[in-house]
Amino acid sequence: MKLNALGLAAPIAALPALASAQEVAAAVPTDVVFILNSLLFLVGGFLVFWMAAGFAMLEAGLVRSKNVTMQLTKNMGLFGLACIFYYLIGYNLMYPLGTWANDDSLSGVLSGVWGPAVMEAVGAGADAVDDYSYASTASDFFFQLMFCAATASIVSGALAERIKLWPFLIFTVILTAVIYPLQASWKWGGGFLDEAGFLDFAGSTVVHSVGGWAALTGALILGPRIGKYKDGRVHPIMGSNLTLATLGTFILWLGWFGFNGGSQLAMGSIGDVADVSRIFANTNAAAAGGLITAMILTQLLYKKPDLTMILNGALAGLVSITAEPLTPTLGSATIIGAIGGIIVVFGVPFLDKLKIDDVVGAIPVHLMAGIWGTIAVVFTNSDASIGTQLYSIIVVGIFVVVSSSIVWFILKATMGIRVSSEEEINGLDMAELGMEAYPEFTNR
Amino acid sequence: MKLNALGLAAPIAALPALASAQEVAAAVPTDVVFILNSLLFLVGGFLVFWMAAGFAMLEAGLVRSKNVTMQLTKNMGLFGLACIFYYLIGYNLMYPLGTWANDDSLSGVLSGVWGPAVMEAVGAGADAVDDYSYASTASDFFFQLMFCAATASIVSGALAERIKLWPFLIFTVILTAVIYPLQASWKWGGGFLDEAGFLDFAGSTVVHSVGGWAALTGALILGPRIGKYKDGRVHPIMGSNLTLATLGTFILWLGWFGFNGGSQLAMGSIGDVADVSRIFANTNAAAAGGLITAMILTQLLYKKPDLTMILNGALAGLVSITAEPLTPTLGSATIIGAIGGIIVVFGVPFLDKLKIDDVVGAIPVHLMAGIWGTIAVVFTNSDASIGTQLYSIIVVGIFVVVSSSIVWFILKATMGIRVSSEEEINGLDMAELGMEAYPEFTNR
Amino acid sequence: MKLNALGLAAPIAALPALASAQEVAAAVPTDVVFILNSLLFLVGGFLVFWMAAGFAMLEAGLVRSKNVTMQLTKNMGLFGLACIFYYLIGYNLMYPLGTWANDDSLSGVLSGVWGPAVMEAVGAGADAVDDYSYASTASDFFFQLMFCAATASIVSGALAERIKLWPFLIFTVILTAVIYPLQASWKWGGGFLDEAGFLDFAGSTVVHSVGGWAALTGALILGPRIGKYKDGRVHPIMGSNLTLATLGTFILWLGWFGFNGGSQLAMGSIGDVADVSRIFANTNAAAAGGLITAMILTQLLYKKPDLTMILNGALAGLVSITAEPLTPTLGSATIIGAIGGIIVVFGVPFLDKLKIDDVVGAIPVHLMAGIWGTIAVVFTNSDASIGTQLYSIIVVGIFVVVSSSIVWFILKATMGIRVSSEEEINGLDMAELGMEAYPEFTNR
Repeated sequence: MKLNALGLAAPIAALPALASAQEVAAAVPTDVVFILNSLLFLVGGFLVFWMAAGFAMLEAGLVRSKNVTMQLTKNMGLFGLACIFYYLIGYNLMYPLGTWANDDSLSGVLSGVWGPAVMEAVGAGADAVDDYSYASTASDFFFQLMFCAATASIVSGALAERIKLWPFLIFTVILTAVIYPLQASWKWGGGFLDEAGFLDFAGSTVVHSVGGWAALTGALILGPRIGKYKDGRVHPIMGSNLTLATLGTFILWLGWFGFNGGSQLAMGSIGDVADVSRIFANTNAAAAGGLITAMILTQLLYKKPDLTMILNGALAGLVSITAEPLTPTLGSATIIGAIGGIIVVFGVPFLDKLKIDDVVGAIPVHLMAGIWGTIAVVFTNSDASIGTQLYSIIVVGIFVVVSSSIVWFILKATMGIRVSSEEEINGLDMAELGMEAYPEFTNR
Repeated sequence: MKLNALGLAAPIAALPALASAQEVAAAVPTDVVFILNSLLFLVGGFLVFWMAAGFAMLEAGLVRSKNVTMQLTKNMGLFGLACIFYYLIGYNLMYPLGTWANDDSLSGVLSGVWGPAVMEAVGAGADAVDDYSYASTASDFFFQLMFCAATASIVSGALAERIKLWPFLIFTVILTAVIYPLQASWKWGGGFLDEAGFLDFAGSTVVHSVGGWAALTGALILGPRIGKYKDGRVHPIMGSNLTLATLGTFILWLGWFGFNGGSQLAMGSIGDVADVSRIFANTNAAAAGGLITAMILTQLLYKKPDLTMILNGALAGLVSITAEPLTPTLGSATIIGAIGGIIVVFGVPFLDKLKIDDVVGAIPVHLMAGIWGTIAVVFTNSDASIGTQLYSIIVVGIFVVVSSSIVWFILKATMGIRVSSEEEINGLDMAELGMEAYPEFTNR
Repeated sequence: MKLNALGLAAPIAALPALASAQEVAAAVPTDVVFILNSLLFLVGGFLVFWMAAGFAMLEAGLVRSKNVTMQLTKNMGLFGLACIFYYLIGYNLMYPLGTWANDDSLSGVLSGVWGPAVMEAVGAGADAVDDYSYASTASDFFFQLMFCAATASIVSGALAERIKLWPFLIFTVILTAVIYPLQASWKWGGGFLDEAGFLDFAGSTVVHSVGGWAALTGALILGPRIGKYKDGRVHPIMGSNLTLATLGTFILWLGWFGFNGGSQLAMGSIGDVADVSRIFANTNAAAAGGLITAMILTQLLYKKPDLTMILNGALAGLVSITAEPLTPTLGSATIIGAIGGIIVVFGVPFLDKLKIDDVVGAIPVHLMAGIWGTIAVVFTNSDASIGTQLYSIIVVGIFVVVSSSIVWFILKATMGIRVSSEEEINGLDMAELGMEAYPEFTNR
């Protein structure tokens, strides 16, 4: 979080002479700062909301048609649950009291504040809003909620085509109510990682690696799909609808402008809006870098460009720039994203070598590129320390892996997390839902 | 409609001492209020525009593939006609003279003003705009037009797979030129329902129930699809593409932030932007409530969650909160939406029991949840009276049912509204349009 | 480019009496003007970004399923390359030095400035931004980049189903690095066409006809698809997925609000925001006009409405209004768009008569309607001269045709631009990419 440009207000308030009258005519009134900051959250928030559709389309396009209805149901369900549980528990756990009056000590952060989010009263004026120097609480809640939901969306793709619906949704509840908000408070709630100087602008670690770690843990506990690794070989399983996967990628790319741009948290001064502009341009450049690198690299390695790699390359570029979309030049942003694209092209077969079955490539995209992006902050932001970045990546990683493992194992021991072999082979849509996504199109 | 915070302007204009100079530095200049209000309409308007795509995708996904091209053609056609006829007739009928200088008497409202919408001159200044204390007329027109088009979109889904193209489009012309604007003027044009104290913030009744009543009337006059009700049983007809239906739902959800948020009609003060923020957060919460309720309820009732019910549950949650998205807390908003979800789960089979064939569930979602949302205003807004709410629901309902019936019956008597049995069985795409939506995919 | 309303600032700065204190309370502070202008570019820019998804969906829907993966790959690739090469070369070529301090002479414009785009420093204040009276450079870059990418997207549809991937992408590099920016600088960089009084508000000529000319040149050099023109007859080839084509059209329509609205280049005064509002409403009206005209006309000509013509009619309406979306009334805008719709309905068969195979109708939509829109400026804007408009259309046309031809011929001579007949018949997806878009759906 950053303070807005309220320093300007002081000389204006005094208004001692005609000279400062000129400044009055130029400067941003403090009410307008509040309005513009809130507006940034609303626009940024609806763009990040839109990412939920992007994840749904990407994942529905990358699974086989026999599992599409299930994948859509999971994406709808996880989003609805994220909304409810981030409201009930997550938001105040992340920003204690919803007023950002955080107890900076570790125990203070861990104890948190348990209770539902509360918005400002209807028609609140300057004296009644929670933080006049910032933005409306409801706009902040709306924006932050969408980040929490995005984290949960990352998990669903990796575990597709074999996980049971309800255990997955129960995991989502724990993730969005507790796991995500707790670790997010360490950085964005002003907690111990923030104190330590950890820099993660929009969440390469706080959002993407968290989703990635939870996905990795789940994928390991769940095991690969039947037939993916057989007779010592990898059998690629093609997605059923690459048009929708491409649409999903474009949707996510669009949403990312809100994700990174909104994380400036302020648009009420020239400097802030110029920074948001830098962030938009850099975010786009990194996606382009990842996309083109994956395209050229798959051409070189496999003699033909691979569209799914290209899509994931763009997404990896976006994840890579998320920890620091502000300070890079356009050239650096392109390169940071390009390295994300390289990571995906090598990360996907690397996971296959380990027999970790990640249906949509969520782990290379969100975890591996998320780690890379978090490290890359040190190359363009002199305030970053490589030690603190690595320390924070590891702390968050251990926390998410341990807490996720506990939840996954409890779910496995109690209700089971994997469908039967027969159901998996027949497809989850008919077996678990009795409803096909494309009932009229003959499957091969 | 609400006044913007111009009360602030008075002390500033006088500027008697340094104390108020401080206020100058904080307060929103009146020009900026105008700009921000107009901006709200533009952003809200393009989001509501986007709902047209949402309806098209939802409906194309929920009809059988043999009727998809027709459904897309209807959605495109109705939107184009809504744009033209709301411009030619509707806008000035709804806001007489386009200056909101309404004659509050019933006869005044009914007589209306017949003529095309007129925008402000290019580059109009403070003295030349129609309402300096509000927003640009073109931005208001743009925003209101999209509401009118949304009303027409609601109808097309319910009547899918059997209605003829041109009679449907002629109905759209009457609906968007006269029926919608006339009843909308009773509330939003400052007419007799507004005078009576009717509260309908963004249109659970004015938009959604109107579309729903028109759809219900059409469905009754048109009759069910061949094969839907046979041998005393309901034969479910599955949609051809649930991915697109899900995409359509996400699009509508996104658009709804503009629909409800823009209906605050002002963003030029702290109170207004905080209210818009509340509305965004509440709108989202209600959708989540409807979604999750439909998911859990179908699991309990049918032992498996039903994706089409989940999608309609989210939409019903959105419709339910539309009459009052501002005053509820996040918790209340979630519950209001959740009841919308319940309404859908029971409303769909209830209509089937009555042999009313509503292809996409538009009547439960827009009419039933619209009525519920209009009633629910009384629970969170003390200005609302249950009597006035019910009175207004009934008045609007009678007007729309009667006027729609007249139009449907005239169309039925003159050109006929239903395709032949043979055309219906073969699919409207080949029969009426000679063009398939998915020509290469074998139909079962 | 237009100046913003800074004239207002002068009386305020002096602040000589209480009368002008009132003006202070009303007027827009200059910092706020900068913020709002930049915000317009960011919102406009993300909307124009979204058009990339629209082109991808439109084109993927209008090609046969055997070429869908390739079409998606081309659209992804061209966008990524546009981002990189407009950054490296295009932006500064178009706006020399990125500070719009253009040498107005022809030689000055032609020589240009070769070098990558540079954004303002992080947190730049009023004294450090490149143009305090305008907007942040990064926001301008972001916005302009999307126009350049849109130009490249236009080309890909026309040449679909037979062009080789890499030669196409190399053409994209030249187009986005040099051809587009150079001619754009003649108008928008303040070059000789601007000096001559050429009016092209958002680019009917500068963007759409340029894409269209490049597509026409490519289509002529490449030749038609196998089987399209056989035995002296035209054999229509149906698109594989009209739902996605419709979605693409809605996406493009939505993006166009940013395309045209953002081209006002300012939102920091009452006049500017009222103008942006006019532009939104007119843009929408023109699309509706084109849509409905194409619908009625195909009904009259072929006895059934043609959805692909309706979609292209809407797009042609949008292209037609792009040269002057501000000055028309709503009625004029509807008519200007309607004529665009007529152009498409006759333009598509006209091209077929010439055996020019344009897979998606890009040439009628973007080139023919673009020329019409550029001419139509004279009907509503008294500053326009028909001579200058025609002169500029011709100059740009000759430049693009000649430069594109050179590039296409070099590519043809060196690497070849067309796949083999066998590959074309089997589909580019399996032949060139080894990956189908819909692997599970049986092709007829």
